[in-house]
Amino acid sequence: MSRPDSAPPVPGLTASSARIDGPVGAVGPVRLGPGARAALRPATTGIDAGFWQARRETNARVGIPQGPGLLESAGNLHNLRLAAGAAEGEYQGAYPFVDTDVYKWLEAASWQLAQAPDDTLAADVDRITALVADAQQSDGYLNTWFQIVKGGERYQDLRWGHELYCAGHLIQAAVAHHRATGRPELLDVARKFADHVDSVFGPPGSGKPVDGIDGHPEVETALVELYRETGERRYLDLAGYFVDRHGHGLLGGEAYCQDRVPLREATNVEGHAVRQLYLLAAAADLATETADAELRVAAERLWQAMTATKTHLTGGLGAHHDWEDFGDPYELPNERAYCETCAAIASVQWSWRMALLTGEARYSDLIERTLFNGFLAGVSLDGERWLYVNPLQVRDGHTDPGGDQSARRTRWFRCACCPPNVMRLLASLEHYLASSDAGGLQIHQYVTGRYSSGQVTVRAETDYPWEGTVAFTVEETPGESPWTLSLRIPQWCRDFRVRCGQETYDGNDAPVADGWLRLTRTWSPGDRVVLELGIEPRLTAADPRVDAVRGCVAIERGPLVYCLEQTDHPGGGLDDIVLDATRPLAVKHRPDLLGGVTTVVAAGRRRRIPDRGWWPYSPAGTTEAGAADDGEPVELTAIPYYAWANREDGSMRVWLPTS
Amino acid sequence: MSRPDSAPPVPGLTASSARIDGPVGAVGPVRLGPGARAALRPATTGIDAGFWQARRETNARVGIPQGPGLLESAGNLHNLRLAAGAAEGEYQGAYPFVDTDVYKWLEAASWQLAQAPDDTLAADVDRITALVADAQQSDGYLNTWFQIVKGGERYQDLRWGHELYCAGHLIQAAVAHHRATGRPELLDVARKFADHVDSVFGPPGSGKPVDGIDGHPEVETALVELYRETGERRYLDLAGYFVDRHGHGLLGGEAYCQDRVPLREATNVEGHAVRQLYLLAAAADLATETADAELRVAAERLWQAMTATKTHLTGGLGAHHDWEDFGDPYELPNERAYCETCAAIASVQWSWRMALLTGEARYSDLIERTLFNGFLAGVSLDGERWLYVNPLQVRDGHTDPGGDQSARRTRWFRCACCPPNVMRLLASLEHYLASSDAGGLQIHQYVTGRYSSGQVTVRAETDYPWEGTVAFTVEETPGESPWTLSLRIPQWCRDFRVRCGQETYDGNDAPVADGWLRLTRTWSPGDRVVLELGIEPRLTAADPRVDAVRGCVAIERGPLVYCLEQTDHPGGGLDDIVLDATRPLAVKHRPDLLGGVTTVVAAGRRRRIPDRGWWPYSPAGTTEAGAADDGEPVELTAIPYYAWANREDGSMRVWLPTS
Repeated sequence: MSRPDSAPPVPGLTASSARIDGPVGAVGPVRLGPGARAALRPATTGIDAGFWQARRETNARVGIPQGPGLLESAGNLHNLRLAAGAAEGEYQGAYPFVDTDVYKWLEAASWQLAQAPDDTLAADVDRITALVADAQQSDGYLNTWFQIVKGGERYQDLRWGHELYCAGHLIQAAVAHHRATGRPELLDVARKFADHVDSVFGPPGSGKPVDGIDGHPEVETALVELYRETGERRYLDLAGYFVDRHGHGLLGGEAYCQDRVPLREATNVEGHAVRQLYLLAAAADLATETADAELRVAAERLWQAMTATKTHLTGGLGAHHDWEDFGDPYELPNERAYCETCAAIASVQWSWRMALLTGEARYSDLIERTLFNGFLAGVSLDGERWLYVNPLQVRDGHTDPGGDQSARRTRWFRCACCPPNVMRLLASLEHYLASSDAGGLQIHQYVTGRYSSGQVTVRAETDYPWEGTVAFTVEETPGESPWTLSLRIPQWCRDFRVRCGQETYDGNDAPVADGWLRLTRTWSPGDRVVLELGIEPRLTAADPRVDAVRGCVAIERGPLVYCLEQTDHPGGGLDDIVLDATRPLAVKHRPDLLGGVTTVVAAGRRRRIPDRGWWPYSPAGTTEAGAADDGEPVELTAIPYYAWANREDGSMRVWLPTS
Repeated sequence: MSRPDSAPPVPGLTASSARIDGPVGAVGPVRLGPGARAALRPATTGIDAGFWQARRETNARVGIPQGPGLLESAGNLHNLRLAAGAAEGEYQGAYPFVDTDVYKWLEAASWQLAQAPDDTLAADVDRITALVADAQQSDGYLNTWFQIVKGGERYQDLRWGHELYCAGHLIQAAVAHHRATGRPELLDVARKFADHVDSVFGPPGSGKPVDGIDGHPEVETALVELYRETGERRYLDLAGYFVDRHGHGLLGGEAYCQDRVPLREATNVEGHAVRQLYLLAAAADLATETADAELRVAAERLWQAMTATKTHLTGGLGAHHDWEDFGDPYELPNERAYCETCAAIASVQWSWRMALLTGEARYSDLIERTLFNGFLAGVSLDGERWLYVNPLQVRDGHTDPGGDQSARRTRWFRCACCPPNVMRLLASLEHYLASSDAGGLQIHQYVTGRYSSGQVTVRAETDYPWEGTVAFTVEETPGESPWTLSLRIPQWCRDFRVRCGQETYDGNDAPVADGWLRLTRTWSPGDRVVLELGIEPRLTAADPRVDAVRGCVAIERGPLVYCLEQTDHPGGGLDDIVLDATRPLAVKHRPDLLGGVTTVVAAGRRRRIPDRGWWPYSPAGTTEAGAADDGEPVELTAIPYYAWANREDGSMRVWLPTS
């Protein structure tokens, strides 16, 4: 094992090393097509212990199995039976897109089956797949709302109808089902629908009857996946057509529907967050599969603008409750952070595609932050209750509106998009963690398990995110050729050490470029690398243009954003709490608490606030104006944000005033 | 003229002085009934010059006259003709309550006619009144949406139908029309509808077919006014029934509809702001007319809670765009301040009733703040364009959604509730300025004109709010009896002087109690009082629980809240601006600007913000985290908030960071 003079700075450009990437990741999302021009190709990871394995185990044991019952009681399956002529009654549900809850569940269950055989689950999948097939009309069309409620009227309300959105989730489910089981039933349904869509939609002059797009993007990225699964180029072309017809006023020109400006010209993300992000996932897919440089540049530009100006600390996206949309730059409210769970998922999907396309580590930085915070908060620790919106603050005296946008966890939603979306991401999480290129293996996220590019396998052991140490052991390696093991040094990490055999580097001398620590060696089985990421708790401040958090800091540790919950601070609420930023932060692991979390303990106090009578505003600079006095000292116990709202209701804060 | 040893501390309890209040204010809203138990009775004011006269003149010349044309083009009048069987076609408008736009316009026009004869306006009022009468059904029911669209189906959708809300505005218009013109036509229509409502609605056991309330309160306060105008006690009883049936789940128990908790038990305002405020106006009316002490206490409690925790600096109310509702305590966002113009109007209406009921000055403090800021911003300087929502910030790079909730002024709205509401308040403004009791005259708001209780008349001359001096001359006084001239010392005022004949007081020795400066004298015609309110510009800070403005101050001067507009600060936006709170504020009157405003000039700078790349969060305490450096000095020009959005589009801020 020897250290070369210079590590290759750009992945994928290592001409001298043997190709060690192969057709792996076949049972996960984003299987790149044969002509794809991506810096990286997805590698697979077998997670077998640790933090994420526990979440995936809950998802497998509680999350996914509860799906059929919930879909039955909410009426989604009833609607399919109605459409199939196998039941009587009325359409159930408040929205025209409730079929997608079924499809997302089928996708989740399929990814799950790819990991572990489960006869009960397989039977449910078979039964529901058959229901979907029965509901499909003979020409391929399938949408229970339009079939039942609208008397078969089709594509007349593309702005609100969600027909292609539903088609998209059907296609994604079918691709997952086919990849996972090898069986054709659901893929046949999806192809039939996709072929129908292809026969209907096309640009002027194409001879197709409708030049249109769906108000809710999703079919675009799904069609790219269908192309990847089937090799049929026309699905890719159709995806490209849909992506590029957004922004031309076909739906009235609203940002909400991603119709105000063409993606290629846009300068920042806007409109409905999930719609924007699914569309951008498709843009990344298309840039990858068609080498469309303009689309790639647009996607890079929009990702940069989004993260720099419209992303909450948790990775959460979407600042407005009304219209579920992005706000203005730096408009990042706390109590009204929308941060829909689906937007976090869509962000992961988009960023992963960007990571593969570009090879840049920052995309996986955002994925990590999102997974551990804005995404994971969306599901309760027991896997049974959900958050649709993920605020960064719940005030003292909060009056909860209930319903889908509640700050209290809910068993299911009227618009139940998020729960099966969580299920499908957890069930396919192992496919978002590593990649390979001709030069080696890149480890994007740290878990306990086996990362494999097909030709090389590296085992990792870690108690991440509670500890910063990850120990890697090379298990399989193709003989005498050198290759590069690339480890992502997280953007949050200010201090690390790595031991590679007898050598040790730290942040000053390690071969790090653009977030990748690159270890190029002629590896042998049994070679060890130990990465120690400094995860001392830290206080984080925001760009001063983020008005909502002026004068505040947040507690973070490793990839985790922390928050205070009222229940840990008896004797009052949280809105009068001040953190003393001059005092050190302490760490306390609490195996008993919230499934086992490391808490961060900080010094604070309860501000004494003078009674101002009826008017809360007063001359600046007077004590009356609320200048902080010493107040009563109070020990602050911060828990990971993902674990909030798993105990009694109460207030919560991520950002804490310092004076 | 002699100063008595002690000024009466509580208005209405001066047994020794002659009654000098009489049946005045008859041509304005809130004419108290004969059994009313109020501390004060409304007095009338003839505004004849100055700040508010200019606004009222614009309202008379531009605002109100444009009404019929707009109501015609928006289809409101067409709907009435349809309902009358005098036209063919379809219902116009997106909502079931568009009739209220007509009614509010009729009310505005009636108040206007009470002040100045206008043949054209009178003819429009006659024509539209006849239309309304023709549209009414034979049993008194009137609602064009239900008559045209719903085939006469009545009271089946009290949660959303707005039938009684429409009835309420019809009644208010009719009372105004009758008071202003003495003519019975519209009052007959309103009584017929009210009688119909009274025949339908009542508590269980009353024999009435429906025990219900309207999702949007308004009929309650209107019925009290109808009682006042007609003397029919059953209208008052019906109002009391409706008020008390809120909060019992008749509409499903939602706060939005004011149905979560009975008003008598509520601890803070909640739900849809305008609905809450109209209901509270009715509560104050009922407490006044029925001496219901519990209702009074509830209204006082809720007013206190609202102002202390849920009111923006501008007097604006309502923190959420979705559901147009109040937020949690201290949830007072800037860019998403909803602050519906109608909520400001409803707040004035409620607070005026509280001022009369209690005699306390603080209610008129809020009225003043609301009138000069949160209300007046709702109409453009030219009287032709409107704001439905009144944010306290528009960010650099703002993407405006357009539509009713735009931060750009609009000619008319899809939901056009606000414009005619502004018209009616401006046309009746003179009735919210002064009151009388047995002991004298109370001047709540300062204008140039004549305040009269019927037996005493005091003329005032002032350039308020640009100057703080108000010169009063007693014009009429009932001979040798002493009486008290009470002048409100505004809550914002830290320093004042008053000259009364040869005597001069300042804040240290003036007979001020609870916001009232009370001058008890045996007045003679020609007696002069000069009040000098200190209106030096000031910086204001908020209670530290108002997270949205931590580290910020606002500029105020007199009753005016100020803001920065981008157009006055070339060379950049506003989001990087920092105000230097250590430097003095200067005042510059600009007769050329925005119809003539006094600007406040402050020292500030443009913060240099380091480029953080893609992530706007960084370790606290580093310069990277946006610690303010000196930046480029910039002179800040603040304009009154009410005058914003009258020039080119751009960003705007009320609250300014100080570091």
